[in-house]
Amino acid sequence: MNENWNNVKNEAVKWVEEAGKILKESLYEQLDIQTKSNPNDLVTEMDYKVERILKERIEHSHPDHKIIGEEEAGRHIQSTDGVMWLIDPIDGTTNFVHQKFNFAISVAVVENGVGKIGIIYNVIQDEWFTAVAGQGAFLNERKLEQTKPVTLQEAVLGLNGRWLAREKRADEQSLHHMVRRSRSVRSYGAAAIELAYVACGRLDCYISFRLSPWDYAAGLVLLKETGHQVSTFQNDEVPLLEPCRIAASRPGLHEELLDYLYDHKGFEY
Amino acid sequence: MNENWNNVKNEAVKWVEEAGKILKESLYEQLDIQTKSNPNDLVTEMDYKVERILKERIEHSHPDHKIIGEEEAGRHIQSTDGVMWLIDPIDGTTNFVHQKFNFAISVAVVENGVGKIGIIYNVIQDEWFTAVAGQGAFLNERKLEQTKPVTLQEAVLGLNGRWLAREKRADEQSLHHMVRRSRSVRSYGAAAIELAYVACGRLDCYISFRLSPWDYAAGLVLLKETGHQVSTFQNDEVPLLEPCRIAASRPGLHEELLDYLYDHKGFEY
Repeated sequence: MNENWNNVKNEAVKWVEEAGKILKESLYEQLDIQTKSNPNDLVTEMDYKVERILKERIEHSHPDHKIIGEEEAGRHIQSTDGVMWLIDPIDGTTNFVHQKFNFAISVAVVENGVGKIGIIYNVIQDEWFTAVAGQGAFLNERKLEQTKPVTLQEAVLGLNGRWLAREKRADEQSLHHMVRRSRSVRSYGAAAIELAYVACGRLDCYISFRLSPWDYAAGLVLLKETGHQVSTFQNDEVPLLEPCRIAASRPGLHEELLDYLYDHKGFEY
Repeated sequence: MNENWNNVKNEAVKWVEEAGKILKESLYEQLDIQTKSNPNDLVTEMDYKVERILKERIEHSHPDHKIIGEEEAGRHIQSTDGVMWLIDPIDGTTNFVHQKFNFAISVAVVENGVGKIGIIYNVIQDEWFTAVAGQGAFLNERKLEQTKPVTLQEAVLGLNGRWLAREKRADEQSLHHMVRRSRSVRSYGAAAIELAYVACGRLDCYISFRLSPWDYAAGLVLLKETGHQVSTFQNDEVPLLEPCRIAASRPGLHEELLDYLYDHKGFEY
């Protein structure tokens, strides 16, 4: 198998654009009819619908590729051998239903565990974050710059406030220290968008205590192409078949963050 | 004095648009020349520049109006009598210099302490949040709906993570409880934008432990026009001549929040 990844990316962008239109229309309709039912019904319906559309297109063009989706596809997949697509049909479901903006479609293509294509499409803001391995990452038509090291004191952290308020363990004080030493904190409620924001420099890092591969697989390709570091809190490579704790950062900052996120005595905050 | 507030609003929008163009151009130039100096120099320079442009325009058209700006205008003003403009030339300065997006120009006009005009312009996203007292609030051309009550469990809170990580007082646990009982937390790093997001329903509330009148004066007009509640943590009216702690929320939620934010024994968290 010897894919032309640029062609595959162009195909995927076309399908994502089609799916994005369907999501936009669903919001307009919802606005019109003042949804009589639970807004969660809309998000569930649209999540499945978008995943199925993308799955159909992929299976038709690439019958030999594997597909993992957030909703149903690929639950049986045990190995990253061959070509695998990872799809998040609506990244930021709370934003989708609650804010009607700042949600994305995230699509990654991985070959034998190595990221080849990453696409994150912020539907309402119409921002396309795309990358093909070895060819750099883009925000719309603009090629993103290679990142440079930064210190925690200068850094704007992407981190949801709820991780600071769990009160499960006294040691989350370590996180509080980290936040106090940083320049500032932001939270947008959509992991794929926040990883894309790290790639383009709007955030200096993004930290999450639980993300699934379809949330971050596309981000990984963008982040690698822009020279960022991504790992679990234990500085291991992030897995593609199970959820993990993840930090994605500019160089230099990454090591500083892991000191706060991971106690080397083996205790994870 | 009997102003036609619509005419004044249209004038103000024109001036803010002009100022927004200057801010955009300053970012493009900075991108071109890869700023040799400290990025904070840019923000300081542009803050003053935009405030002066707006001040000149206002003084020329309305020589009898008072002006308070974030940077220098109106430091001597002691009373809210007459017509007063409150200007934040760049709301979200860290975003301006660091993210090159999600910053706003905020302009309010107040008569004898009562908000008459609110304009919040998110420059890069090109979103205009505007309101004239008694005529409703708008996001671009779309009239914003009247808000409805919501509970904390359903609410998406606008709150910066650093307020959860101060560790100055054990009682900030009350904030942690509030966050855990909410649906989610967002933080965009620009108070005027976050107040505008409350007005248009993207956030259910915005909470800050320190804001100045130029940060919130325009937001107040938008929030009043959409039926939101705004107060200090002690449920007093927010002042127009000094900073305060502020909560802006949908009805119902507001009372719930104040229970977490203010200990009625007189202790403020």
